[in-house]
Amino acid sequence: MNADITELRKDPITGRWAIIYVDGQRELPKWEPVGADGDTENCPFCEGHEDRTSPEIFAYRKEGTYPNTPGWFVRCIPHIRPWLSVRANLDRKGLGLFDMMHSIGAHEVIIETPHHDCDYHNSSLEQVVRILSTYRNRIVDLKKDQRLKYVLIFKNRGKPAGSLHVSHAHSQVIATPVVPIRTIQELHGTLKYFKMKDRCIFCDIIRQELKDGVRVVDENETFLCLIPYASRFPYECLILPKRHRAQFSQIEDAELKGLAQLFKRIFNRLHQVLNDPPYNCVLHDAPNTVPQKGAWQTIDQDYHWHFEIIPRIMRTAGFEWGSGFHINPIAPEKAVQDLRSISLKIDETKC
Amino acid sequence: MNADITELRKDPITGRWAIIYVDGQRELPKWEPVGADGDTENCPFCEGHEDRTSPEIFAYRKEGTYPNTPGWFVRCIPHIRPWLSVRANLDRKGLGLFDMMHSIGAHEVIIETPHHDCDYHNSSLEQVVRILSTYRNRIVDLKKDQRLKYVLIFKNRGKPAGSLHVSHAHSQVIATPVVPIRTIQELHGTLKYFKMKDRCIFCDIIRQELKDGVRVVDENETFLCLIPYASRFPYECLILPKRHRAQFSQIEDAELKGLAQLFKRIFNRLHQVLNDPPYNCVLHDAPNTVPQKGAWQTIDQDYHWHFEIIPRIMRTAGFEWGSGFHINPIAPEKAVQDLRSISLKIDETKC
Repeated sequence: MNADITELRKDPITGRWAIIYVDGQRELPKWEPVGADGDTENCPFCEGHEDRTSPEIFAYRKEGTYPNTPGWFVRCIPHIRPWLSVRANLDRKGLGLFDMMHSIGAHEVIIETPHHDCDYHNSSLEQVVRILSTYRNRIVDLKKDQRLKYVLIFKNRGKPAGSLHVSHAHSQVIATPVVPIRTIQELHGTLKYFKMKDRCIFCDIIRQELKDGVRVVDENETFLCLIPYASRFPYECLILPKRHRAQFSQIEDAELKGLAQLFKRIFNRLHQVLNDPPYNCVLHDAPNTVPQKGAWQTIDQDYHWHFEIIPRIMRTAGFEWGSGFHINPIAPEKAVQDLRSISLKIDETKC
Repeated sequence: MNADITELRKDPITGRWAIIYVDGQRELPKWEPVGADGDTENCPFCEGHEDRTSPEIFAYRKEGTYPNTPGWFVRCIPHIRPWLSVRANLDRKGLGLFDMMHSIGAHEVIIETPHHDCDYHNSSLEQVVRILSTYRNRIVDLKKDQRLKYVLIFKNRGKPAGSLHVSHAHSQVIATPVVPIRTIQELHGTLKYFKMKDRCIFCDIIRQELKDGVRVVDENETFLCLIPYASRFPYECLILPKRHRAQFSQIEDAELKGLAQLFKRIFNRLHQVLNDPPYNCVLHDAPNTVPQKGAWQTIDQDYHWHFEIIPRIMRTAGFEWGSGFHINPIAPEKAVQDLRSISLKIDETKC
């Protein structure tokens, strides 16, 4: 027995609980810095290797260069082994108690840089704007297909985060014919609050966090980064627009620049404090088709898009999967201090 | 692009979706067999090292032996660094939007065997009965404290499953002052079905699976093991009582024997087919205190306890955390064939 003091904290949106070490802290397990594997020879995502991928769907390129040749900044291609594909028919079926459908959808890869060893923390502002702008482009494009109910954009960096095959920085885009359960759970939470208060719960959290100050990592005019009160993982970060917005696709060009600036700063802080950690970065966006009647008709007022960044420095075990409870060995308020205390090195831009 | 065929399958209880490879299959990543580290010298859980742990709360022992000395079969001790403790006051608080309470509760460890290199797959029937009977004992005991709303029992085996410090087989017991969100989600699902059909959804699933036969791994008179229709992970197994039961604590002595027999068989199958995989095994039980008014008054009729066994041979990535969607590279029907096809080696009992 020892003198650790833990608190149970409830996430106001989903209702799940986290056990947080508020006094005393657990040792974090060791992790390998992601680093660069240096294997540019065999990397299908490096500039000059365009013929090793499927033809591009979208790209930002230098003027005068041709698709599927060098000269690009960001490239979007179909996934080589898609989990879902747009060719199939939906074909919903009931099998007794069970429901299934064919996995119609889309699965794309966004190659975020022509350089093998670049990532958000050492990229130029212009380059991060291009990446985020590609996110917007893919969402707007895929949401035109009314069968696709949700577009999920996520990034896995490093093997512990699930990036097993290619270390070159990339995101993935998945469009699904159903709304994912995590989104539905968030939507239930935000709707419940909206019905009670007639306000967006994320907007209220932003107001409270800006007033308290102890969980705000960084901010600029348009965006805010905080560590959630009931964080599941150490150094988990949330990036939110200060202005209420349900759909990421509504983001304006000027705002993209503000978001890119904050991205650079946050990932630079994480890179320095956690020594190049593996991470997941996931966009939580509103679904495509909103049932105009029934529960979700206020979605544009009650939902608020955000990025969730999870450094993958802890393993999840049976307890987490079985309960939805999480044990977080580092209090959000302590993690914020760590992230704030370093000097930013965002001028050492390589890419 | 290739000819993989995937299906989207919906879990009838929670409503989450899984993408399942039904034709063609993905290569599984490699994993290390858990094995035994052989380090009996430094193991605090080996027989003879009783003085290295806190005093035991409960034990099965040879007649005439004393607590905290050799001669035990199963020992239950307090966790050395508990996440929650029974000493604290609950002290619920609202902090603006946020809810917290002190982490009142219990955190115990069940040492499942005096031998360093034993596990379910090579243990005797009597020993597995003792382990499961210890589960029952701890639940009955902890549920006497009305402040504790839930008792979670889980086992992590191997580092990838979260067992970082001690390789000697053990389970953990956590009692919490709140009902975990995963349980609440299951309860919502089972209640919704019960309201519609006046029947337990698990009982209906058992009937349908026994009729279909293609997802049943093994069964005996009292228990059934199946791979769920919308499995999240390859070779994920569910063990359920055939007779409707909400609370694990209701299990009778004769039934414990049937459950132990199935445990031995299932873990022997998994051990052989997956070469001693890391795994989590989690008991999903009904909560302690049922609000007698309101939503959960039918819990004894609509909920059905079960064990969830998850071989930890895949990594979860950003997609799973962000969406609640899972990608399962091996169809449940295929995994069942693999598990059924081996010859059981349950007579080679070592422990």
